[in-house]
Amino acid sequence: MYRSHTCGELRESHSNTLVTLTGWVQKTRDKGFVVWVDLRDRYGITQLVFDEERTSKDLLEKARNLGREFVIQAKGTVIERASKNPNLPTGDIEVLVNELIILNTSKTPPFTIENETDGGEDLRMKYRYLDIRRNQVKDNLIFRSKVAIEVRKYLSEEGFIEVETPYLIKSTPEGARDFVVPSRMNEGQFYALPQSPQTFKQLLMVGGMDKYFQIVKCFRDEDLRADRQPEFTQIDCEMAFVEQEDILNTFEGLTRHLLAEINGVEIDAFPRMTFDEAMRRFGNDKPDIRFGMELGELNEVAQHRHFNVFNSAEFVGGIAVPNGAEYTRKEIDKLIDWVKRPQIGAKGMVYVKCNEDGTFKSSVDKFYDQDDLANWAKVVGAKVGDLICILSGRTDETRAQLSALRMEMAERLGLRKSNEFAPLWVTDFPLLELDEETGRYHAMHHPFTSPKPGQLELLETDPGAVKANAYDLVLNGNEIGGGSIRIHDKDVQATMFRHLGFTPEEAHAQFGFLMDAFQYGAPPHGGIAFGLDRLVAILGGQETIRDFIAFPKNNSGRDVMIDAPSPIDQEQLDELGLKLRT
Amino acid sequence: MYRSHTCGELRESHSNTLVTLTGWVQKTRDKGFVVWVDLRDRYGITQLVFDEERTSKDLLEKARNLGREFVIQAKGTVIERASKNPNLPTGDIEVLVNELIILNTSKTPPFTIENETDGGEDLRMKYRYLDIRRNQVKDNLIFRSKVAIEVRKYLSEEGFIEVETPYLIKSTPEGARDFVVPSRMNEGQFYALPQSPQTFKQLLMVGGMDKYFQIVKCFRDEDLRADRQPEFTQIDCEMAFVEQEDILNTFEGLTRHLLAEINGVEIDAFPRMTFDEAMRRFGNDKPDIRFGMELGELNEVAQHRHFNVFNSAEFVGGIAVPNGAEYTRKEIDKLIDWVKRPQIGAKGMVYVKCNEDGTFKSSVDKFYDQDDLANWAKVVGAKVGDLICILSGRTDETRAQLSALRMEMAERLGLRKSNEFAPLWVTDFPLLELDEETGRYHAMHHPFTSPKPGQLELLETDPGAVKANAYDLVLNGNEIGGGSIRIHDKDVQATMFRHLGFTPEEAHAQFGFLMDAFQYGAPPHGGIAFGLDRLVAILGGQETIRDFIAFPKNNSGRDVMIDAPSPIDQEQLDELGLKLRT
Repeated sequence: MYRSHTCGELRESHSNTLVTLTGWVQKTRDKGFVVWVDLRDRYGITQLVFDEERTSKDLLEKARNLGREFVIQAKGTVIERASKNPNLPTGDIEVLVNELIILNTSKTPPFTIENETDGGEDLRMKYRYLDIRRNQVKDNLIFRSKVAIEVRKYLSEEGFIEVETPYLIKSTPEGARDFVVPSRMNEGQFYALPQSPQTFKQLLMVGGMDKYFQIVKCFRDEDLRADRQPEFTQIDCEMAFVEQEDILNTFEGLTRHLLAEINGVEIDAFPRMTFDEAMRRFGNDKPDIRFGMELGELNEVAQHRHFNVFNSAEFVGGIAVPNGAEYTRKEIDKLIDWVKRPQIGAKGMVYVKCNEDGTFKSSVDKFYDQDDLANWAKVVGAKVGDLICILSGRTDETRAQLSALRMEMAERLGLRKSNEFAPLWVTDFPLLELDEETGRYHAMHHPFTSPKPGQLELLETDPGAVKANAYDLVLNGNEIGGGSIRIHDKDVQATMFRHLGFTPEEAHAQFGFLMDAFQYGAPPHGGIAFGLDRLVAILGGQETIRDFIAFPKNNSGRDVMIDAPSPIDQEQLDELGLKLRT
Repeated sequence: MYRSHTCGELRESHSNTLVTLTGWVQKTRDKGFVVWVDLRDRYGITQLVFDEERTSKDLLEKARNLGREFVIQAKGTVIERASKNPNLPTGDIEVLVNELIILNTSKTPPFTIENETDGGEDLRMKYRYLDIRRNQVKDNLIFRSKVAIEVRKYLSEEGFIEVETPYLIKSTPEGARDFVVPSRMNEGQFYALPQSPQTFKQLLMVGGMDKYFQIVKCFRDEDLRADRQPEFTQIDCEMAFVEQEDILNTFEGLTRHLLAEINGVEIDAFPRMTFDEAMRRFGNDKPDIRFGMELGELNEVAQHRHFNVFNSAEFVGGIAVPNGAEYTRKEIDKLIDWVKRPQIGAKGMVYVKCNEDGTFKSSVDKFYDQDDLANWAKVVGAKVGDLICILSGRTDETRAQLSALRMEMAERLGLRKSNEFAPLWVTDFPLLELDEETGRYHAMHHPFTSPKPGQLELLETDPGAVKANAYDLVLNGNEIGGGSIRIHDKDVQATMFRHLGFTPEEAHAQFGFLMDAFQYGAPPHGGIAFGLDRLVAILGGQETIRDFIAFPKNNSGRDVMIDAPSPIDQEQLDELGLKLRT
């Protein structure tokens, strides 16, 4: 062992102990007669001291010439510091060094290895191994491993078995795009990397494994949006002989355990809300309920005048922004510009200021009187001093716009507090979703999700109205998990495939093994999958996942550190029986 | 919840309790006036009883018609059995059923779901979800998850952090063949699936993460030998600021923990042996030391007569097979045939019987006298009643043949006891291995392995003689782990690449990121990786890994259950910019 202690553990009680430390040179301060070196490792920083009185000339010189990020081994005696640093756990002591070995030198790093770094995103990614030395990234990775430990601990104690499912599986065109892996031994054929272990966990239920989980990498070849990764990690879970209620309780238990163990937050029963209610109250199927600003539907109280914009709209709705009445005309104009950005897509915005004197001032004063505006304020729950923002148009679009506005205002008002945790179950999702481009229905969750009891017949007459035994777990406005009770009856599954536009042949070619399995005694079952990257980020009080992933890819799916993907040899292509198009 | 109890937990103390059980019908026994149903779930089997006296006629009829593997829910009362079954944990009770719900029917399964099944390997793989219902497979999977839990527990308590490294990485021609993944967003470029997270764990050390582990899938596109899988699981570990001794101690600790927790076996310090010694004594770098039969080198005592076969051989060696003197001529001939099989490759075999009366009888009596044979017996440690088997030829080949013979005889003699555990460290492996076909040296472990201190210069003059800071952990004749102290100096690494025949350009193209990283303060580091599949199998007292993997592939790399790999759509190929050769 190169060290006797880490750089995070020495205290005053170690005084006069001979120690050997190793680590990286964070910085040196040279006062001429004395040189201090901050030595850093995973565990902290310890100050080394060299001085004219007690240190040999050669050693002092050697210390003086240490560069940033040199790797050193220092032997010496722990002594009490003259001026202590209360901000550092080791701040009461320093180590008076009598032997210094340079284990490795370092070029000057391309950015400072400090909490506040001068390195931009691209540089940090290219030199990720240096970025990981910074507390933020290092602590996030340690935090992530701690969350994973607690997940495994909780689920194991609940009788779940972690089973590894295969990574080289079969491509299925349904859903997102698969990454594929050409097979050399079976020329012209391909494996696919799993988008999730969905079918395998269902087969494990058929196999009697009754409580399964796995922390597992999944892959989706999608055009990457910000903060999406082509490979991501799921906590994948499935149970047999259960109903929806059992799953909600079990995984509410897991989440409660994590919040308690990781964040020290105790939360009672999680609130629940149907999908329809979430859309109505928040315009969003993953509402952040840490704050109010709920959507009010104004159709009844705003479509009785001669304001055609509202009268012709399917939906008129608003939110009350706390203390927004003091916004200047210019600020409100900027807000109107914001909702008109293509990402939001509103055509305009009507506003009402709820003045301190109880009167209202709106941008549509020529159409509506004070009583009208007072009614609106009542519907959206606006108080004196608030600003009511009103959008109108198609119901789903307008709700989505109001939701975006609500989140934006909450962000600006500091209502999205990272140390506050508000979990929420959203249930009763629609089974199917209409793809407006193709006019075809596809599964909102996936094709194995079961409809609510008694709604199977509705598939024939009003497919869009069928609700599913599907649920999401939402935390602070982010979907952290989603799942469903599955179909376990082969005839129901065949019906589902038919409604999703599969011919029996296509269904058989892609999912024949699952439909076969359902012939041999499939138990009732259901499950859930959590996105670990996002869960960890949110528990860590952040919303971007990238710094909770050791080696993330950029928005083009590239690992800029190792420079992947990259061309491969002709020989490799030949062995795989492949040619490039170009 | 569909059940109140599992099928494994009811005892006499539950008598008169109303319970609800769910599970699969293992079998029904119909005695006319009474019907017994064995109900099975993951936790065990519970007997259900229906009889004319206490059960309604309809219900009795329903029970009578249950098919094998039907999924049912049964409600009833726990009662004491008249004739108890001491072989079953629930054998003291049965459940008198008053309500029976068929949750799903089943076709007759293609093989019996019993400990002793009539299903052949192929059928079991095709219907793996049924195979998993069998105790053997199910228990193996549960056993595997238990081992993984203990691994994580031990390493976490030792301060290791589990860090997930990426699966979509960069192809490197060094070593085995990579599976590659075409990139759609970067046409003509490919990711590779990791053969191991080797470079990433080294980068984590450069990043200061100092104690890393990960239980992780790895991928090798090799022509599959029996009991090899294209995807396999490693316990991958790395430490910084350590020497070989620290790594051996840490992972000896892990292995000792597993043997104690999983197998209840306490083992003191693991023996250690250099590679050279292992080859000399056992002809094998992963010797099974649960039994003797060590190799004796007979050159000195067998090359002084006119027996040209021995005189012209580089190496003459033998082993003493306990109690082999009683073998008949026919049995010995079969043994000679066995060593002459192409898989073993010996040209012939000389034998010496150590008779009960102290005399010797050999197949080369016309060349050697009794004193010669007595000397041989002494060298190989043969006792009265033993059979000495002697092979000759090139040293390495002959040792390998003797090793194979030794293992075969141990197997036949029942010396490889599955409940006995004999771990062994093999150290000081050669750094390089000569590829006889190409005449080129390649890294025996991998190109990042450091030579023993002071041996770097030897690379120039006698590369084959250079020993590495490399070690394997052997358990019962299987390599369960292997690792090394890595190179952390960029110049040494460049020298290694040169000796492995890389031009500087090639080295840079493939490992530039690692060599770059080494410029920024790489600490001394080293690690080890365990093959989890094999480790679990051996701890489980078995040698084949397949039934410790939930969904294994066959020897052609196929998953016969899901029928993968398989052709993909032209559209998918087009999106990837690929064409098939045919």
